[in-house]
Amino acid sequence: MSTVSSEQIIEQLQSIVGADKVRTDQDSLEQFGKDWTKIYEPKPLAIVFPKTTEQVQEIVKLANEQQVAIVPSGGRTGLSAGAVAANGEIVVAMDYMNEIRDFNAVDRTVVCGSGVITEQLQQFAEDNGLFYPVDFASAGSSQIGGNISTNAGGIKVIRYGMTRDWVAGLKVVTGKGDVLELNKDLVKNNTGYDMRQLFIGGEGTLGLITEATMRLARQPLPLTVLVLGVPEFEAIMSVLNTFQSKMDLTAFEFFSEKAMQKVIARGDVPRPFDTEAEYYALLEFENLSDETADVAMTLFEECMEQGWVLDGVMSQSETQAKNLWRLREDISETISEWTPYKNDISVVVSKVPPFLNEIEAIVTEHYPDFEIIWFGHIGDGNLHLNILKPENLPKEDFFAKCKDVSRWVFEIVEKYQGSVSAEHGVGMTKKHALTYTRSEAEIEYMKALKLAFDPNNIMNPGKILDV
Amino acid sequence: MSTVSSEQIIEQLQSIVGADKVRTDQDSLEQFGKDWTKIYEPKPLAIVFPKTTEQVQEIVKLANEQQVAIVPSGGRTGLSAGAVAANGEIVVAMDYMNEIRDFNAVDRTVVCGSGVITEQLQQFAEDNGLFYPVDFASAGSSQIGGNISTNAGGIKVIRYGMTRDWVAGLKVVTGKGDVLELNKDLVKNNTGYDMRQLFIGGEGTLGLITEATMRLARQPLPLTVLVLGVPEFEAIMSVLNTFQSKMDLTAFEFFSEKAMQKVIARGDVPRPFDTEAEYYALLEFENLSDETADVAMTLFEECMEQGWVLDGVMSQSETQAKNLWRLREDISETISEWTPYKNDISVVVSKVPPFLNEIEAIVTEHYPDFEIIWFGHIGDGNLHLNILKPENLPKEDFFAKCKDVSRWVFEIVEKYQGSVSAEHGVGMTKKHALTYTRSEAEIEYMKALKLAFDPNNIMNPGKILDV
Repeated sequence: MSTVSSEQIIEQLQSIVGADKVRTDQDSLEQFGKDWTKIYEPKPLAIVFPKTTEQVQEIVKLANEQQVAIVPSGGRTGLSAGAVAANGEIVVAMDYMNEIRDFNAVDRTVVCGSGVITEQLQQFAEDNGLFYPVDFASAGSSQIGGNISTNAGGIKVIRYGMTRDWVAGLKVVTGKGDVLELNKDLVKNNTGYDMRQLFIGGEGTLGLITEATMRLARQPLPLTVLVLGVPEFEAIMSVLNTFQSKMDLTAFEFFSEKAMQKVIARGDVPRPFDTEAEYYALLEFENLSDETADVAMTLFEECMEQGWVLDGVMSQSETQAKNLWRLREDISETISEWTPYKNDISVVVSKVPPFLNEIEAIVTEHYPDFEIIWFGHIGDGNLHLNILKPENLPKEDFFAKCKDVSRWVFEIVEKYQGSVSAEHGVGMTKKHALTYTRSEAEIEYMKALKLAFDPNNIMNPGKILDV
Repeated sequence: MSTVSSEQIIEQLQSIVGADKVRTDQDSLEQFGKDWTKIYEPKPLAIVFPKTTEQVQEIVKLANEQQVAIVPSGGRTGLSAGAVAANGEIVVAMDYMNEIRDFNAVDRTVVCGSGVITEQLQQFAEDNGLFYPVDFASAGSSQIGGNISTNAGGIKVIRYGMTRDWVAGLKVVTGKGDVLELNKDLVKNNTGYDMRQLFIGGEGTLGLITEATMRLARQPLPLTVLVLGVPEFEAIMSVLNTFQSKMDLTAFEFFSEKAMQKVIARGDVPRPFDTEAEYYALLEFENLSDETADVAMTLFEECMEQGWVLDGVMSQSETQAKNLWRLREDISETISEWTPYKNDISVVVSKVPPFLNEIEAIVTEHYPDFEIIWFGHIGDGNLHLNILKPENLPKEDFFAKCKDVSRWVFEIVEKYQGSVSAEHGVGMTKKHALTYTRSEAEIEYMKALKLAFDPNNIMNPGKILDV
């Protein structure tokens, strides 16, 4: 703990970034001290808004000197409390480091301050005839630095990979206060350990990302969406396999009839077709030529003949494609009124059916009144488990019971060698569950890596690990 | 250094792997003690051939106890002396850990012992209707463990990435002797630091890779090759840009007229077309539909109209495509009779033209009798610089002069923020040049990471770093 007073630290912060870039009012402390999780009471010391890497470096040096912790803050859309400041930390908010610069059309790269908002980069890419392909529900407020720190995934991973795959280079300030320029935006660079990869997904525990050179992709040709009704979960895998052996999909999502019913009940989008099926697969592909849709139609018929698919629809316009996507994308918001229990887990794709069945069975056995809503990015083995709170069950009782659910889920994750956090990170909410995916030995090495970059443990302490 | 005798260590090794799996004869020491570099005199203590991860773990524990160093040995096709044992090390050769197992068609993954030969995996993939896309000249002898440890690149990086992109999971024995199973083959797994990424490209300095789960790709549709004659180097970049904005290339290589002349002189392959150009670009693409070739033809005409291209040819058969590829692929072997100086460097793609020109200018200015042969994977900024030894210049004098060349090249690499080793790794031959690409601070962090995994510095010491 610091030997000087909070007031003195705030003064020192003001001398680094200017008085107007340090906030200590209650509203700001509340707003910038938490992410989308609402479990922990925010209680930061101050919110500071640097504008340059040099300022960030000075803040880190101050934090080391005074032994005050730092919590990095992006769009705070996280779901694992990775950006929560509940213990008198300095919150370093990247909102003013939001410049996009040095676009290079040949390299298809652009340098982003870590505070650039995902949608801002997507728009920039589009304005320049290119495409930033990592996309997810919170793209309107999440920031690039946060995306990288959590290796954000989303709905196009099957084709474009995670955020990791789009980071050409990083400028970081380590927990020790060194500025490192990692990888210098090169495609090929085999000169020792690729430390960039540790900051990607590091949840701000090794240092602060101040700048990132992001890669952009060719704009996709027009996209077609297929929604298929599937009677049995196992058949979804056969459908995936059938399509993937013949074409490159840009998305392969799934959701249950129960999930879709909730979305349709809102009245914004119609049912895709009359036939009811227990599950639906949503496929998206790029129309690389006039023949592509024919190939997809043939594969669709093949799946029908095999009995894997009961019915289906293929988008004939951009509007129809958008509406089909809404069947999947509106689920999360739609079910929020049932205060759902959520879990974000993954296994290798081939193990998804028994994995899902086992979780469904144990939950239903113990809590038959729980309504389970499944959806997710099944093309990459990532399931979002949602359980709706029964109307007459008090919130506390529901979440108490869900602690059992979590334990069963994590035990099944471990059995199937899966991940307790597919794309949302560990933060604080999944720290206790880390051992279901990572061995004790791995965790010891992670701690050693943490200390190599942040020997005083000032960078986002208590997130991912306790060192 | 060890307190027991060499004989005792050899006995202990024999008790771990069996007497027939330890070799100390001079031929074996020579053969397994070096890679394709011929600068260092091999002088290992013994060559040991484990068959299981458990045996590897016991060897590592023994090495720690006795303070004897280990050099991991794959196909030993490296060009940076990363697999050279010149100081009484135990060479751990992976030749018997060459099993391919647990193929999964849905996940498109397969588990490989680290001694599996690249070509063996490529063939396995083909036999199963899939494709392992990392390919390079030494695929017939290089091993998967070595490919991963050096993050091997090759001729299809522009489309398929480096070896890094195909590693779903790793089983490693760290320098401390712990067995870690990294990432468990998951597509999405955000549970803390992705330590798999450190072992990829780690050149065996952190531990030994014993098993890897590799991803496989869809088999490409028939490929077409275009060779274009380009009068000025800068125009190659315009050609690249023109094609990449409209299609996904699987390769974009270049070579100079001088390089091609040498290949043609051997009489195995004909000149692609009569028009002579200073440079040639070789493009390859997948025929996704009947229209693809038309698109390519239109782009080719566009480049002709702009004056970027003087002439060109498009393959009409698989044989013709293969012959066009030989113009590029035969260069390295063809020029070997001139005992060439070689360097493997990279910059971001857009900087390639001034970078190449600057190197060419300084070499020509000082050594006008040196013949410079350029080729490389220009789609990813990777140039292979080759300088032929003038016939009447003694070898020693030539390589003495080439020390100057290296210094100039590395200084220009630093100026352009490039990499002193694009794909061949650092090993021992580029260790002195590391600072041209990596800052002193970065190197300090690399040392700290090394010590976290290998506190006694027994794993391939003296490679990449001196700790």
